[in-house]
Amino acid sequence: MTHAAQLPAVLNRIDADLDASLARLFTLLRMPSISTDPAYKGDCADAASLLTADLMSMGFDASVRPTPGHPMVVAHSQAKGGTDEDGPHLLFYGHYDVQPVDPLTLWDRPPFDPAVETRSDGSKLIRARGAVDDKGQLMTFLEACRAWKAETGTLPCRVSILLEGEEESGSPSLVPFMQANAEELKADFALICDTGMWDKNTPAMSTMLRGLMGDEVTIEAADRDLHSGMFGGLARNPIHVLSKIIASFHDEDGRVTLPGFYDGVPELSADIARQWAALGFDAGTFLGDVGLSVPAGESGRTPLEALWARPTLELNGIAGGYAGAGFKTVLPGQATAKISCRLVGDQDPHAIRKALRARITELLPADCTATFHEHGSSKACVMDVTAPEFEAARVALTEEWGNEAAFVGCGGSIPIAGHFQTILGMESMLIGFGLEDDRMHSPNEKYEMSSFHKGTRSWARILAALA
Amino acid sequence: MTHAAQLPAVLNRIDADLDASLARLFTLLRMPSISTDPAYKGDCADAASLLTADLMSMGFDASVRPTPGHPMVVAHSQAKGGTDEDGPHLLFYGHYDVQPVDPLTLWDRPPFDPAVETRSDGSKLIRARGAVDDKGQLMTFLEACRAWKAETGTLPCRVSILLEGEEESGSPSLVPFMQANAEELKADFALICDTGMWDKNTPAMSTMLRGLMGDEVTIEAADRDLHSGMFGGLARNPIHVLSKIIASFHDEDGRVTLPGFYDGVPELSADIARQWAALGFDAGTFLGDVGLSVPAGESGRTPLEALWARPTLELNGIAGGYAGAGFKTVLPGQATAKISCRLVGDQDPHAIRKALRARITELLPADCTATFHEHGSSKACVMDVTAPEFEAARVALTEEWGNEAAFVGCGGSIPIAGHFQTILGMESMLIGFGLEDDRMHSPNEKYEMSSFHKGTRSWARILAALA
Repeated sequence: MTHAAQLPAVLNRIDADLDASLARLFTLLRMPSISTDPAYKGDCADAASLLTADLMSMGFDASVRPTPGHPMVVAHSQAKGGTDEDGPHLLFYGHYDVQPVDPLTLWDRPPFDPAVETRSDGSKLIRARGAVDDKGQLMTFLEACRAWKAETGTLPCRVSILLEGEEESGSPSLVPFMQANAEELKADFALICDTGMWDKNTPAMSTMLRGLMGDEVTIEAADRDLHSGMFGGLARNPIHVLSKIIASFHDEDGRVTLPGFYDGVPELSADIARQWAALGFDAGTFLGDVGLSVPAGESGRTPLEALWARPTLELNGIAGGYAGAGFKTVLPGQATAKISCRLVGDQDPHAIRKALRARITELLPADCTATFHEHGSSKACVMDVTAPEFEAARVALTEEWGNEAAFVGCGGSIPIAGHFQTILGMESMLIGFGLEDDRMHSPNEKYEMSSFHKGTRSWARILAALA
Repeated sequence: MTHAAQLPAVLNRIDADLDASLARLFTLLRMPSISTDPAYKGDCADAASLLTADLMSMGFDASVRPTPGHPMVVAHSQAKGGTDEDGPHLLFYGHYDVQPVDPLTLWDRPPFDPAVETRSDGSKLIRARGAVDDKGQLMTFLEACRAWKAETGTLPCRVSILLEGEEESGSPSLVPFMQANAEELKADFALICDTGMWDKNTPAMSTMLRGLMGDEVTIEAADRDLHSGMFGGLARNPIHVLSKIIASFHDEDGRVTLPGFYDGVPELSADIARQWAALGFDAGTFLGDVGLSVPAGESGRTPLEALWARPTLELNGIAGGYAGAGFKTVLPGQATAKISCRLVGDQDPHAIRKALRARITELLPADCTATFHEHGSSKACVMDVTAPEFEAARVALTEEWGNEAAFVGCGGSIPIAGHFQTILGMESMLIGFGLEDDRMHSPNEKYEMSSFHKGTRSWARILAALA
């Protein structure tokens, strides 16, 4: 019997099993696995143990793997070299840790006491810390595997699973763990369930993630703050200097003026441009939601292109002199700015950092020095969607949701996808079912019941499609 | 007997009485009259009472005058309309309140336990909070009056005295008090002893004080802080906007570009320019002391001219986005700057505020708003030094110190001099004996014994010269 022939029964089993699936998710949601707070170290370990036991109960070869921080969960649907499943080898990634919950007073219910809420239109949602980020999402994949196993005794593809417990606290153990276990974790494709849908009814795969280069500059003139009456007119003001430098970063068309900045920035393919145009992105609504109306930035680009496929140089912070209440006639000794670039295509964060610092240094007047502080760098991550598996997964998503799934971009950075490319040499399919209003990282986090249910069904279909 | 003939005996008496003068100063210095801290309200009142009693003991008609804050001390050497003294009517101004003393740990001795310290070269200094600012300075005048009274039974001029107790906390009661008592306080000239010498051996009268216009602008774009990954490339960044605006304030020659900014700015008279050139100001040393070497600001002006006789536009503070430790990829919703102009000649602070706000508004791109907050304004204060009394006082100072006294400028603002001009219609002679290294407002404040002793002798000479 083909996987396609088995699929309807698997989907029916997911439907029938929904209450039990929810119960399992709720057990996980009740664990306060806040990775950044040492007080919850034991709860993180408990969550890892629970998931490991659950995977073992499904027949996975699963284990808790210690790290210097919180443990990883690693599971394999068959022993290395086994041949039970014919399809490609897939590595699924999710994370069991969650964000802190403060301020607790803004929650309508205890964050670790999950509940299903029903709206007046009959739609339901799951309310809890971690509902969308990422416990609800990772459980969609586990429940899909469970249904396949229960219905057919096996999986359509060979599946490995990597669940992290430090994603919300900077993933300090992730890269060393991947490097130390590269042979074990390497697969044909990675599946990452930590992103969102295009909208409530339209699924999406994120295939372009912008990279990030962060830098900080402090410009110093006098060796102390001066009195503007005594020195004003003779002493260099570093806020002026910094402002002039910042003003030089963009031209009249909003293009970044650093030499070589656009090296490696590709033009959008006609194919992707067509797909994005079909999404009907409404920049007016997008901006209107935050009190804006006119797209700023590089001229001559569509709004989605600007957000997903074009690089930026932004000021993330600036400080100098006296900025408290009232007024001080201080002529400051220094001024600081935090600067970041979102990167696309093949842009080199190190070359861009160098160009940025060269520009700043070049514009420094007499008596000023600039000191720099690096705040990380990652290249953009662009998936090779020409592999037929990407199209197969896209079609499976489209069939489940009844709306054309899109290969979308993502303005932010998801470092794990880059690590999978560079350390394990595999492309990632970023498929998730979060919505913009899910209050990720905020009080009253939720996950749509439709995301959980149809997300599980989506993975069941994708496993069949990739087989 | 003429005043000139009486002067040597008066000066001898000052010399002979120095220890007793110091003892009286120390009694005043022991009072912790910190005006800004309500805990010291009683100490401020005590200082006012002490000074009033002392002035009464010299024969002044003196009284403590309540205000909504700390009291004023007002004293007159004779009743209104009296004719005991023939010279011009002089109003002396000083203040008996002091700055807070924290951090206490940086003081080498208790700040309100004054002491005389002797250097290895034999020179002495008085160490205490208030030693130079302004108890030591105001006592030079009182001791000069005491010597004249003791030696001759009268004063060469009619003298009124106004001692304030709120100078270090913004002088909230001063203007209303002057307005309410204008008739009583009005004199021919004001004498203000709250400034410094040119150097340790060269006395000075400050005759040009720059004015001040303070303003604050907040530029808002989005109605909240945004994620730079999600919005970067499409949303307006107010730090960019603010930087571009700031960069527009000056041209390549360091001149302020606001329309009409230089209206009312006079060129320096040849006379004053000659006097200032003779001071031999060393910009290299002045800037070198704070880690700078090259004069910044308006080109084509001498350093002293830039500091004393040219207007400035300075940024005193800037803030926007995340400026703490580490990095946040925030695209801020707003950015703020505090801006001040030092004004000279007849520049109108209100017109300049208007021009500044017009420039900012004009450069705002779509979706941005600017809100403004006013932080005070005062015109420059330029004394009419053509009155012969100014030259007479200058000659008296020169005779006491053996070095040519100079009419100097002052980059900062001393509001009281402006109030005397506008409310009481009189010019001020700003004569003080502070030195740059007196640590005014800082731990280990001091006053040179030579400043106290020769300062007292200077006033004795000036009273004779003005008679």
